[in-house]
Amino acid sequence: MNTLLDTLRHIVGAAHVFTDGDLSAFTRDWRKRAHGKALAVVRPANAEEVAAIVKACAGHQPATGVSIVAQGGNTGLAVGSVPDGSGTQIVLSLTRMNAVRAIDNANLTMTVEAGCILQNLQETAEEAGFLFPLSLAAEGSCTIGGNLGTNAGGTQVVRYGNTRDLCLGLEVVTAQGEIWHGLSGLRKDNTGYDLRNLFIGSEGTLGIITAATMKLYPLPAAQLTAWATVPSMEAAVTLLGLAHRHLGAGLTGFEVMGQFALSLVDRHFAQLRVPLFQSAPYCVLLEISDHESEAHARGLFERLLELAMEDGCVSDAVVAESLNQARQLWHIRESIPLAQAEEGLNIKHDISIPVSRIPDFVAETDALLQHQIPGVRLVNFGHLGDGNLHYNVQAPEEGDAATFLREQEDRVNALVFDAVTRFHGSISAEHGVGSLKIDKLPHYKSPVALGMMRAIKQALDPHNLMNPGRVVRP
Amino acid sequence: MNTLLDTLRHIVGAAHVFTDGDLSAFTRDWRKRAHGKALAVVRPANAEEVAAIVKACAGHQPATGVSIVAQGGNTGLAVGSVPDGSGTQIVLSLTRMNAVRAIDNANLTMTVEAGCILQNLQETAEEAGFLFPLSLAAEGSCTIGGNLGTNAGGTQVVRYGNTRDLCLGLEVVTAQGEIWHGLSGLRKDNTGYDLRNLFIGSEGTLGIITAATMKLYPLPAAQLTAWATVPSMEAAVTLLGLAHRHLGAGLTGFEVMGQFALSLVDRHFAQLRVPLFQSAPYCVLLEISDHESEAHARGLFERLLELAMEDGCVSDAVVAESLNQARQLWHIRESIPLAQAEEGLNIKHDISIPVSRIPDFVAETDALLQHQIPGVRLVNFGHLGDGNLHYNVQAPEEGDAATFLREQEDRVNALVFDAVTRFHGSISAEHGVGSLKIDKLPHYKSPVALGMMRAIKQALDPHNLMNPGRVVRP
Repeated sequence: MNTLLDTLRHIVGAAHVFTDGDLSAFTRDWRKRAHGKALAVVRPANAEEVAAIVKACAGHQPATGVSIVAQGGNTGLAVGSVPDGSGTQIVLSLTRMNAVRAIDNANLTMTVEAGCILQNLQETAEEAGFLFPLSLAAEGSCTIGGNLGTNAGGTQVVRYGNTRDLCLGLEVVTAQGEIWHGLSGLRKDNTGYDLRNLFIGSEGTLGIITAATMKLYPLPAAQLTAWATVPSMEAAVTLLGLAHRHLGAGLTGFEVMGQFALSLVDRHFAQLRVPLFQSAPYCVLLEISDHESEAHARGLFERLLELAMEDGCVSDAVVAESLNQARQLWHIRESIPLAQAEEGLNIKHDISIPVSRIPDFVAETDALLQHQIPGVRLVNFGHLGDGNLHYNVQAPEEGDAATFLREQEDRVNALVFDAVTRFHGSISAEHGVGSLKIDKLPHYKSPVALGMMRAIKQALDPHNLMNPGRVVRP
Repeated sequence: MNTLLDTLRHIVGAAHVFTDGDLSAFTRDWRKRAHGKALAVVRPANAEEVAAIVKACAGHQPATGVSIVAQGGNTGLAVGSVPDGSGTQIVLSLTRMNAVRAIDNANLTMTVEAGCILQNLQETAEEAGFLFPLSLAAEGSCTIGGNLGTNAGGTQVVRYGNTRDLCLGLEVVTAQGEIWHGLSGLRKDNTGYDLRNLFIGSEGTLGIITAATMKLYPLPAAQLTAWATVPSMEAAVTLLGLAHRHLGAGLTGFEVMGQFALSLVDRHFAQLRVPLFQSAPYCVLLEISDHESEAHARGLFERLLELAMEDGCVSDAVVAESLNQARQLWHIRESIPLAQAEEGLNIKHDISIPVSRIPDFVAETDALLQHQIPGVRLVNFGHLGDGNLHYNVQAPEEGDAATFLREQEDRVNALVFDAVTRFHGSISAEHGVGSLKIDKLPHYKSPVALGMMRAIKQALDPHNLMNPGRVVRP
């Protein structure tokens, strides 16, 4: 092991290899579900150093069983970026690789290193007069490399897609320690298999993304936010259809929030002044982005909401009067997880269902859970525009929440995931597999698909050097 | 062989196995560059039959060397869907599998079988009140399976992306004859490697796509088309930037056409009345799709063109007064390849370059070709919005075109592809690799990427049963 550590120190400089002290920022996951142990935390400065690290580890692997866990901001929710407890894993932290290498105005692209923090990229793009639309709760500390590794979703997917859809090219260090210079800024390239999308979402199990060329969009002239109460989940789906038809690509956000979820925000963050939530089972947050003007956007919103009220799918609505008010509405939506945490322990889900099936899924699964697990409280909210719900389960008000989770978490998960499967949904919409769900996949994913995943893992990383125990076992 | 043919007849019925007569519709490619020989043409009715065919062929492969070429409308431009001359290949024609299995209005999806003709899908979607935006010259006879297999591009990519971007899920028969039921209608699913995008664009070399779930969009309220003259390619790129900024996602088409390309249309199809082309080196066709009204779209266009004229990037412009006039403008653009054929033999290219580099690429490559190959005539047109040019080379007016092609085609290709590579472009933007470019890839693609492609091919199709000799050699 000492030989390997010496080699790693030689590659990146001794100052960038951590083996002592409190390494918990690198070895403990965001939600504090896993506390691992690293052989070392290594912080390379460029792709060449990453390649040298991979080659060094591959060379030592037969004797030491060493393997590599790539890590960005370590904000993942599926326990995919921290080492296991073996003490034989290298945490390859990419946060020193944080340069924006280029912005190409006419090509609408930005080439960035994996360790760039998402919010910095949003700001860099805006300073150059562009929008980089990826946006999610952890944006202040997550990195674009982690976003790509997990194909992160977020709040703008209804218009701009997931991280995958925002990426045109990658620089990747393979499991053999070779550098694939695939930083294409091309919107069309049909010269072979889609390696880019294979690495995106592979959670560091096939290779290490060191840089990417990402799409930029023109900055909209105005953004407006509305908040509407809807009498049912069916009505929310109807409203979504109306919004698609009347706003087209102007619809950039469509979030649904259940009454109980909002009541938790109201209870724990009363200063946020949750509007209208007491009068309806669900509220919807809509966002419009407009290339003409705020007045034009407001006109579109007013017409849409008028139609929706005539139709009956909206019972009441407010349109934010200012950017500040719009931010407050988003802030309410984003405070639901925090309010849940204030309320106590809970079981989180990140599921997707075809939009058309969501009302039935929710009705059926709500009833099933309430029947089977008395007192359970359902915190349902999410990105309805993408069919993605954070269908969370809060422990009953009475009794000890920790005991509830210990006794009921597996049962709740099984109930929810079985229902998701009946409705042709996914048990991980935007958070990935990590180690949290790796052993669930064989139950919920096609064996044919899993067989192909194993064959690909074996083909690209035959010695299981890259983030073993995540996504798929060879 | 007879045993295999008997088995195939047993699987699909004798009426759907062709071995005699004129099979040239299945064995000759669209551009008549390759005339192959099929052991049989087999026309399955469903995925189960496809799976049985694959298993039968796999079982006979060791003795007979048989392999499978999947085929849709056989309109591909890279010689990827016809058999080679060995007489040992089965053409698996998917045209009987042409059902639209489902349209999901609220989920904005359509589940269709691989053999559906693209234009039928456009019409089916429109009848249901939706837009299926994939659109390309061969739409009257190409199939969605072929579009997916080659990741076809077309005229709407600037807004809606390539075929890949329109697909949410696939049903695939693997090289082992298993069916992967991956017909997801989900916009978010992070449960493992992106198998969907691996099969899309793999040209039938990894498995056979038998059905797909495709995205639908709300029908726009209005579409308008404008035709503008621009003083240079730089000006065309500037106009593109202005159009992005002022139209946002309303910009659904942006085509550039060189003066000589348009002069060929004028010469051979004078009745089309090409507007304004004599006064500028390039014309641009712009299309806007609007969710409000034609009047609103017209206002946007007028403002954009006014700004562009003030800027100097547009010298003259007309906006179509009617849908009919809009169609005529598109028809001119789409007649360029036919006018080229009327003019005589030519060398076609399908390249992409980052948009920002296109002016320099064109200036440099025009000069290079004209200097090295006197008399050469450049027919430059394409989807500038995507950085995709059909940078074609017409034989000199004097002399025999066939002789020119025989003597100069390789040299012209090398000059163009080397220039593309210097400008970080792709030698196949939207047509694929097929057998036409398989031996070019080792010169123009990263060896690391090619190595990964080979490893994946070997992993998923270890016996090279699927369309051997296309895309990548194992």
